[in-house]
Amino acid sequence: MQFPITPQWDLISRLAKRKGASSKIVLLVLDGLGGLPRGSEGLTELETAQTPNLDQLARKGAVGAHDPIAPGFTPGSGLAHLAMFGYDPLVYEIGRGVLALFGARCFERDVMRPGEVAARLNFCTVEEKAGELIVTDRRAGRIKDGPASELINLLRARLSLPGVEFDLWQSKEHRAALQLKGPGWSGELEDTDPQATGVPPLAPAPRPVAAKDPAARRTAEVVADLLGQVREILRDKKPANFILTRGFDTYKEIPSMAKLTGMRCAAIAAYPDYRGIARLVGMEVIPTATDLANRNLPVAKRGEVTIEDEVAALEQVWSEHDFFFVHIKKSDSYGEDGNFAKKVEIIEQVDALVPRIIALKPDVLCVTGDHSTPAQMKTHSFHPVPVLMHGRLVMPDDATSFGERACQRGGLGRLRGTDLMPLMLAYADRLAKHGA
Amino acid sequence: MQFPITPQWDLISRLAKRKGASSKIVLLVLDGLGGLPRGSEGLTELETAQTPNLDQLARKGAVGAHDPIAPGFTPGSGLAHLAMFGYDPLVYEIGRGVLALFGARCFERDVMRPGEVAARLNFCTVEEKAGELIVTDRRAGRIKDGPASELINLLRARLSLPGVEFDLWQSKEHRAALQLKGPGWSGELEDTDPQATGVPPLAPAPRPVAAKDPAARRTAEVVADLLGQVREILRDKKPANFILTRGFDTYKEIPSMAKLTGMRCAAIAAYPDYRGIARLVGMEVIPTATDLANRNLPVAKRGEVTIEDEVAALEQVWSEHDFFFVHIKKSDSYGEDGNFAKKVEIIEQVDALVPRIIALKPDVLCVTGDHSTPAQMKTHSFHPVPVLMHGRLVMPDDATSFGERACQRGGLGRLRGTDLMPLMLAYADRLAKHGA
Repeated sequence: MQFPITPQWDLISRLAKRKGASSKIVLLVLDGLGGLPRGSEGLTELETAQTPNLDQLARKGAVGAHDPIAPGFTPGSGLAHLAMFGYDPLVYEIGRGVLALFGARCFERDVMRPGEVAARLNFCTVEEKAGELIVTDRRAGRIKDGPASELINLLRARLSLPGVEFDLWQSKEHRAALQLKGPGWSGELEDTDPQATGVPPLAPAPRPVAAKDPAARRTAEVVADLLGQVREILRDKKPANFILTRGFDTYKEIPSMAKLTGMRCAAIAAYPDYRGIARLVGMEVIPTATDLANRNLPVAKRGEVTIEDEVAALEQVWSEHDFFFVHIKKSDSYGEDGNFAKKVEIIEQVDALVPRIIALKPDVLCVTGDHSTPAQMKTHSFHPVPVLMHGRLVMPDDATSFGERACQRGGLGRLRGTDLMPLMLAYADRLAKHGA
Repeated sequence: MQFPITPQWDLISRLAKRKGASSKIVLLVLDGLGGLPRGSEGLTELETAQTPNLDQLARKGAVGAHDPIAPGFTPGSGLAHLAMFGYDPLVYEIGRGVLALFGARCFERDVMRPGEVAARLNFCTVEEKAGELIVTDRRAGRIKDGPASELINLLRARLSLPGVEFDLWQSKEHRAALQLKGPGWSGELEDTDPQATGVPPLAPAPRPVAAKDPAARRTAEVVADLLGQVREILRDKKPANFILTRGFDTYKEIPSMAKLTGMRCAAIAAYPDYRGIARLVGMEVIPTATDLANRNLPVAKRGEVTIEDEVAALEQVWSEHDFFFVHIKKSDSYGEDGNFAKKVEIIEQVDALVPRIIALKPDVLCVTGDHSTPAQMKTHSFHPVPVLMHGRLVMPDDATSFGERACQRGGLGRLRGTDLMPLMLAYADRLAKHGA
């Protein structure tokens, strides 16, 4: 119930300078950063954005591009983040359920034990037609945090599975997570989310590979029982009256980047999934001032974490950690909406905050995205992602701005996502020589 | 007791054109070639050097950069050379002892048998304080070859380990090597070199992984006996009165690049370690005129091999081989000393000799370094290493000079160290098509 250590991590852990290393690294991720030109001769989102501060860093440092998985492959966000953190996403395959649960419980000390099972839940709406349930909205109108957490509390109070230790956790809007505690469960369950409306939810069932596995069958039965009860409890509720399940997975322990590198690692992110993935690989998730204020507010009145909040949190905990992952979500969200102008705006907002990061004097600042989300495509894409590397040991290149075309001919060349971690460590002088 | 053949070598050996292939390849390695800018806006060592001949080759050919291991990792020299020769350094892990022994015995036909054990020895000085030995100089003031070889001769004459077949070999200055012959020994021994002065040498002991291995224990006992005798024999000697041991390793046979490629491979190098690594992978080490003259001189009167000697040796044996590895050491030595100007000077000396290499009409000339050693850092670094590739089949790029920035945007792109060998073979038209 433990992932292996890849040769790259083995080498990093053997070479990591632990004693006396005090250099600091900031990995600033604009989700979905990479884009495509608007029109046939146009500029990309990043090229369009006015980014005087990032451009100055590009002039001093070096740029390039990374393929999160490998050229041609489009990653999901969890997987792309794993790659940037140095975890080969084809080795460290982590289900969405485990990600969701770590996101929902990211501030807790113990989240899951190896062998436990988690699933991502979506609040949804269903209708009964001719005695059959039909999904009418897979996200229950993107139900707000307030009503969603009230429904979760109701379910927690009323659900009863004798002999089964389980729990439910709300994360954000329609998103929640299910945890099956203790040993004996299987993560090899199909989704009940039919990925379409106008059709019934699927019945909980083992995946074909586990069709004859007693643990998978038992897990499917328990989930069927749970969903039956959920349906009864939520039958007359609004704005959601049922849940869909996705991404069942068994939790396997992941070698911690904090332990492997000897760095105290911090994550600053507004969205639960990114907090979850950071927590999974051994980072401490830092609450922003808004998060702290929210703890004393009813769910419906809670504020949203802004980019400025995130930078303020970075300043706040600067002395306490060595590696800082700062995650900006909205560049991706606007890319997915096809909103070129708003994506440009987010990039400009981040640029305006860059001087505050530079004022902290990080030894290495790496600015990149987890993947590309061209507004033209309204979805994640396979295009290599711009990277900017700034620091004392960075060999400067000829770049005078931070943009896709500059990155294509940049001094860092075309990298793999998993190259970023050893490069950041090297530029921070945190890796010793290998071999005499 | 044999290293495996990597998929790349398997492919090369299947595709290598053996019959009728007469093309010649020169791999000219300036050790530690890569550098960093002097001052924040300055030029690197290679960019500063006046290199009209290399620049002309860059105009005709193509440039790029290679990461010896992978982006971010700093290699030792042995490992970096293995990579350039096509041997994945994470597969072919060779201890310093074996390298040192092959260096010391590089002109001999049989050096070691698989399973035999070697260690690198350093002459050192120690003092007795309160009944304890304390290391005072780990290199015995960089003892000269003359006195070092006299001490080796003395030890060879006087040491006695009944039933144990062993030998000692001097290589250069304070460096020597120990060979434990025959089967039954273990290379899993800790160093006795404490890597510091003012502390006692460490006692010979099995590495933790071999703590219970009888062969490792027996080897540790024999080495302890040997070191005890060394101490008695050298007690009143100068300038060294003891030895330290490092890099114990068992010799495993390495697939020969001569056999794998069908090329007659020659190595021309001034320093024992590079001769050793070349010999290990199946090259014939060519003695320079100075080496030949030295054979008739007392050790103390022997001359140093110059860069000009090396090029003369290349000319001398040109008709007898297909692949020529020419190694220039001092670019690295001056980099390690932080001597920017002297490193520049060595690069210029090499450049001045390039026309003599070109006059031989090699089909492929590859000029590169094994790793970077920026004078600013005074140590090996992880920075990608400039590569220049010249030959009839090289697709020219826009480069007009050979330097780090030109290489960053060069047509070869960013390569791995192990890419160089198949590329050189291909440019020399020595690899057939794979698949029908």
